[in-house]
Amino acid sequence: MSDRQINPHISIDCVLFGYDGENLKVLLVQQVNSQERQPKGRMKLPGSLIYDDEDLDEAVRRVLYELTGLKNINMMQFQAFGSINRTSNPKDTSWLERFHSLNASIERIVTVAYIAWVKIDHHLKQLTSQYHACWLPIEDVGELAFDHNQIISAAILRLQKNVESTPSILYDLLPRKFTMYQIRHLHERIFDREFDPRNFHKKMLQMEYIIPLNDYEKDVSHRAARYYKFDRKIYNRSIHKVF
Amino acid sequence: MSDRQINPHISIDCVLFGYDGENLKVLLVQQVNSQERQPKGRMKLPGSLIYDDEDLDEAVRRVLYELTGLKNINMMQFQAFGSINRTSNPKDTSWLERFHSLNASIERIVTVAYIAWVKIDHHLKQLTSQYHACWLPIEDVGELAFDHNQIISAAILRLQKNVESTPSILYDLLPRKFTMYQIRHLHERIFDREFDPRNFHKKMLQMEYIIPLNDYEKDVSHRAARYYKFDRKIYNRSIHKVF
Repeated sequence: MSDRQINPHISIDCVLFGYDGENLKVLLVQQVNSQERQPKGRMKLPGSLIYDDEDLDEAVRRVLYELTGLKNINMMQFQAFGSINRTSNPKDTSWLERFHSLNASIERIVTVAYIAWVKIDHHLKQLTSQYHACWLPIEDVGELAFDHNQIISAAILRLQKNVESTPSILYDLLPRKFTMYQIRHLHERIFDREFDPRNFHKKMLQMEYIIPLNDYEKDVSHRAARYYKFDRKIYNRSIHKVF
Repeated sequence: MSDRQINPHISIDCVLFGYDGENLKVLLVQQVNSQERQPKGRMKLPGSLIYDDEDLDEAVRRVLYELTGLKNINMMQFQAFGSINRTSNPKDTSWLERFHSLNASIERIVTVAYIAWVKIDHHLKQLTSQYHACWLPIEDVGELAFDHNQIISAAILRLQKNVESTPSILYDLLPRKFTMYQIRHLHERIFDREFDPRNFHKKMLQMEYIIPLNDYEKDVSHRAARYYKFDRKIYNRSIHKVF
């Protein structure tokens, strides 16, 4: 790509979550040979070794754009992974050496993992095909390259924790207008357990920042459900601070 | 120390907070020449390059023990720092090359920073003197090696955030029995602002998990204040969960 030097010891990886109304999804790409641009290897998180002359956050912006076409995503650092076994699979290391045209062999790589949650419909059409970027339902994710399954598991735990402390994250994932069913369903996907519909809806209706709209589902076979929207101003006012 | 290979690209650093009843303190060591064991350089966080054959968490336990004598501290990873400028000061890099007897010159190091908060009286006497480990009040911390001032600032922000979401952290820092003044004072040190004593104490007395003791300060010139203790069982029951 240029004569910039690759740093073979440090990488970044991006875990992007989206929700399409049915599934909690994660953004993946395929290991592609840099010369042939053909799918060759396993699926993986969008990520890469960094250049010697770039900072971690810069690398995240560059890599996400180069591999998926996505821009202006607010990725947050959440955990570094540095197990000495994470590059022990020769399939991964030989792909990496080919991909970056490295002369030396890959040793342990510490990867700094980033996380984000986005409205999937805003970011579905922007995806580029060069690395076969796609949104895959969490439960359909098979064996990924490196320790990327483990990174996704850690990211889901982080997402759960963040939703518990900052419920507004749900509304970053939901479409701009959503039904009560969708809020509950998204909860169920994130926490991987069922919530009683009646109790759940009752609690949700107590949240002043969930505003009912004069707008209902159309062309559905069941009774058309009402749409709601999230009001961030009311939410910010409602956050309980001890002091 | 052995014939294990040092990885010159990756380090870990430990930010330990303690509270001695007067000051919020951070644990620091001094840059010491590995041959002479004499103070030579600037103060820094306890941290080190890692060995090629150790994981990040293992390195944290080893380094903290080797540099300060502390054991069994539950350090949590909180942020990786990888700016290309973080090793730009030749004072730091030449010390590091001497300390580890490296032949090659140090380039960019990504450090994975860990955080913990402890009862300082439990961990004061254990400190070893080899690297001049000491607890320093946050406001007395001068210019540290590398980007360690920046790492401490980020750690304070993280501590503030964690105390807001998990108030029990305060009682990890406070002595086993404490006065109302001490809770407020610790708050003021962590958030770097003053709280109105009357309102603060009123709010604190509403917390069921703060238990008054039949025990008062002794030998004080002011009116002896009552001691309280933290009840973790009641705290855990009192945590408000939406679902």
